[in-house]
Amino acid sequence: MANYPTPIKNLIDEFAALPGLGPKTAERLVFYLLKRPTTDLNKFASAISQLKNKITVCQKCQNYSEISPCAICQSRQRNPKVICLVALPQDLLAIEKTNEYQGVYHVLGGVIDPLQGLTLEQLKIQELINRIKIDGAVEIILALNSDLPGETTILYLTKLLKSFKNIKLTRLAQGLPTGSDLEYADEITLTNALKGRREI
Amino acid sequence: MANYPTPIKNLIDEFAALPGLGPKTAERLVFYLLKRPTTDLNKFASAISQLKNKITVCQKCQNYSEISPCAICQSRQRNPKVICLVALPQDLLAIEKTNEYQGVYHVLGGVIDPLQGLTLEQLKIQELINRIKIDGAVEIILALNSDLPGETTILYLTKLLKSFKNIKLTRLAQGLPTGSDLEYADEITLTNALKGRREI
Repeated sequence: MANYPTPIKNLIDEFAALPGLGPKTAERLVFYLLKRPTTDLNKFASAISQLKNKITVCQKCQNYSEISPCAICQSRQRNPKVICLVALPQDLLAIEKTNEYQGVYHVLGGVIDPLQGLTLEQLKIQELINRIKIDGAVEIILALNSDLPGETTILYLTKLLKSFKNIKLTRLAQGLPTGSDLEYADEITLTNALKGRREI
Repeated sequence: MANYPTPIKNLIDEFAALPGLGPKTAERLVFYLLKRPTTDLNKFASAISQLKNKITVCQKCQNYSEISPCAICQSRQRNPKVICLVALPQDLLAIEKTNEYQGVYHVLGGVIDPLQGLTLEQLKIQELINRIKIDGAVEIILALNSDLPGETTILYLTKLLKSFKNIKLTRLAQGLPTGSDLEYADEITLTNALKGRREI
């Protein structure tokens, strides 16, 4: 035996192909699963094979959803004229969890990041432009990460969307995070916090 | 939407239940899988559901195998009287990869480690004793980790197996690993290397 039995080897390969998991982690997971009851394995397997069967992409906001348009796009409590632009569904969920936002979303599918193989063509920018026209958007909130790819994308979109008159372009405030220590804040954060200071 | 659609949520929960994977990693994996073709997902799902179907435990060496007795236990090139005791199937594979060992194995299923909930009852010790009697073993190699639980288990098994006369009990040599630097070796390793010195 120079290798594991085929069923074990197969599953190790599958796990090891996932991003961020190496062959050793994959091995550990498979030996863990071998000790689980068969019903658990079947549940896991069906969760994987069901994943894409029941999931579609909302034709309006491009988020993953079981229905299209999704619950948020359909909701009457939501203002369809305020669109919050996020890179990923995970970011959308983070904002939803605040329970503060009453507008709708648009999931870009990433940011401009040539190093990661993400170029303009893969982002849902045309879909955004179509929506802006159809829904008569009044505000676009660019809720992207405050890192280099995020800032690049914000810069690009700001130029692109400037052509729409009567649309307010906003971005998330930059400043000190809650609970942070001024003494240890980096210079850029502090500069942004100073620039964005507001009256109390 | 205070949460992901059910199929996404389900799979995140499944991944997050695996040891060493947190909810954020699980989320990342699921969104990666959402971008994969359905055939890949089905392959992954079937690898999981097939895992236990085709895998059994070899009744002799207790290793996972597609057949019982396993290929190693059945092999005529192997000496069934020399048994190498390992904690886990992963350890067995590591020794097999050296292509140096011609005996058979016995997979203990772990070591004595109460902190990890592993006690004597869960280890395949009775199965080992039965084999020793049936096969008339002449040597048992205790190939366990050189850490506290491993040493504890070696100590326990040494006492237990001493009752068998005519059986040679051995353990893996302890000393400097290949390519290591004497200057940076820890005291215990160096002490072991000195004690185990041999004529050249």
